[in-house]
Amino acid sequence: MKPRIGITIGDFNGIGPEVVLKSITAPKIRKAVQPVLIGSYALFSYYAKLLKIDITLTEVSSPRDAVKAGEVPVITVHPATVKSLQVGKNSPDAGVCAGMAVEQAIKFCLDGSIDAMVTAPVSKEALHFAGYNFPGQTEMLAMLTRSERVTMMLLSSTMRVALATVHIPIKKVSESLFTDRIVEKLETVHASLSKDLGIKNPSIAVLGLNPHAGENGAIGTEEREVIIPAIKKAVEKNIRAFGPFPADGFFASKAYEQYDAILAMYHDQGLIPLKMSGFDEGVNYSAGLRIIRTSPDHGTAFDIAGKNIASPGSTIAAIELAASIIAERKR
Amino acid sequence: MKPRIGITIGDFNGIGPEVVLKSITAPKIRKAVQPVLIGSYALFSYYAKLLKIDITLTEVSSPRDAVKAGEVPVITVHPATVKSLQVGKNSPDAGVCAGMAVEQAIKFCLDGSIDAMVTAPVSKEALHFAGYNFPGQTEMLAMLTRSERVTMMLLSSTMRVALATVHIPIKKVSESLFTDRIVEKLETVHASLSKDLGIKNPSIAVLGLNPHAGENGAIGTEEREVIIPAIKKAVEKNIRAFGPFPADGFFASKAYEQYDAILAMYHDQGLIPLKMSGFDEGVNYSAGLRIIRTSPDHGTAFDIAGKNIASPGSTIAAIELAASIIAERKR
Repeated sequence: MKPRIGITIGDFNGIGPEVVLKSITAPKIRKAVQPVLIGSYALFSYYAKLLKIDITLTEVSSPRDAVKAGEVPVITVHPATVKSLQVGKNSPDAGVCAGMAVEQAIKFCLDGSIDAMVTAPVSKEALHFAGYNFPGQTEMLAMLTRSERVTMMLLSSTMRVALATVHIPIKKVSESLFTDRIVEKLETVHASLSKDLGIKNPSIAVLGLNPHAGENGAIGTEEREVIIPAIKKAVEKNIRAFGPFPADGFFASKAYEQYDAILAMYHDQGLIPLKMSGFDEGVNYSAGLRIIRTSPDHGTAFDIAGKNIASPGSTIAAIELAASIIAERKR
Repeated sequence: MKPRIGITIGDFNGIGPEVVLKSITAPKIRKAVQPVLIGSYALFSYYAKLLKIDITLTEVSSPRDAVKAGEVPVITVHPATVKSLQVGKNSPDAGVCAGMAVEQAIKFCLDGSIDAMVTAPVSKEALHFAGYNFPGQTEMLAMLTRSERVTMMLLSSTMRVALATVHIPIKKVSESLFTDRIVEKLETVHASLSKDLGIKNPSIAVLGLNPHAGENGAIGTEEREVIIPAIKKAVEKNIRAFGPFPADGFFASKAYEQYDAILAMYHDQGLIPLKMSGFDEGVNYSAGLRIIRTSPDHGTAFDIAGKNIASPGSTIAAIELAASIIAERKR
């Protein structure tokens, strides 16, 4: 039996519906996965017609409902219609629909009616309008599944990057780094790589916070006081953690090829190189979550919404990763 | 007449002498430039022999001293001998020699006996042992030439990156950013691109400080309070400044191809993408300096010193850039 993967609509004014529809019609996804679309039958149908995507959608009320061969089941969580669309703009309706789709997908994951979920991109502004006050979907998922140790990981074809801090101002990064928290992140990454990605005894490179990784204390003390002690503690727990490495040289010299994952200290330190290393294939993976969740590594792209030019590459990669994690956990 | 370019030895325990000797024997450099090596005749000679580099060095006391065709003049600033070498290690002697070579090159630039200087990599630790207490050579050059508005720029084959802050801890980046200072940086970059690189009316992309460029204040306020006002002021001064852009997406989408330069807010934000974009050709250029100075974009590489495996690519690019700036300023 094919793995059943719930795919949320994302912000319906952005490229979410487009990349979802394009990705599930890709031959390798058709072959390997049973998708369940979650959001709005009316709007998925609208976009399929608009973008001339060859697909048969069938409205269902549960992922377990039977559909005919070749049909794709869709679950409606919000009464949006074509009139609700404000393509390329933020709207409260789109935020409500996006948030409800995520909530519904989580419920299905928890009750076992789907094996994993893939989330299309949302607009944080629209989510905020709608009353979902989370810095991002990862934080929303952590909260709603009561998972305490979630770590945002991003995977491209050339590297796997985990983030010690995510959506916080640069000014607050230093005060948010604690030895124990970095050890926890290393444990989460270690466990995910082993359990979800099938990498035995994985090696993890830890980046420094400061320029030149602090240059022995000459440019900042966090390496000495927080990061190096965390690496030592992790090593004592039999985690193969290395570093801290100066971030610029680490990526320049392709040192990342020697490690199974990289722990970056803040958002741009990890995402600049990750996205430069293979933009169309980046996948966001929530390590340490009770359920399995992946997502494409890009935003709502309001500027190109509805134009039929969005690439489904990252969403396809996200679905493939979810499928391989399902298989790995079953093993 | 060929431009006369002084090239400092850098840290003689690192790859400095090697990349200098290899670069000046490259055919395109031989053809276009009259190099003047500054540091130690004994040690340049030692490395030339060790690395089997086909070159004839001649000791001189001034860059204006005549040498025979094909000979390369060398000026000794420090009595180091082969016995002073501690290859791959920090030593006070190497710091003194490296520092004195830079001081001497500056004097020659200021008195007009050389047209520009290229500095080989130094060890900050060795320089500190030797009493040179600067965070880097750029700061040393700014101080010794009394240039107030120096901006570190890095150039690869695909992008030009200027840094708003350089060798300071991440914790201090926010408090080091002021509207007027960013405007000054933009003026310096604008002037250098026009005057030194011959780019008329250059466009400059300014990066945000925070993840997603602060997301309208949701993730940090520096964009709103400091960076956007600086861009507006610069635009009022007829500088084509744009942004602030979220750094990860900016590099992922290759938006940098549309701008003549990028102003990054801190070291790693600029240097990770720069170095990933063309590692062997990166050049460091001190914009806004009274004299012309470039340098390779890598460190002393103690781990590979003396092994004849260091690439001179970045040093060659640094010498070429210095030569083209000399020509541009004469125009």
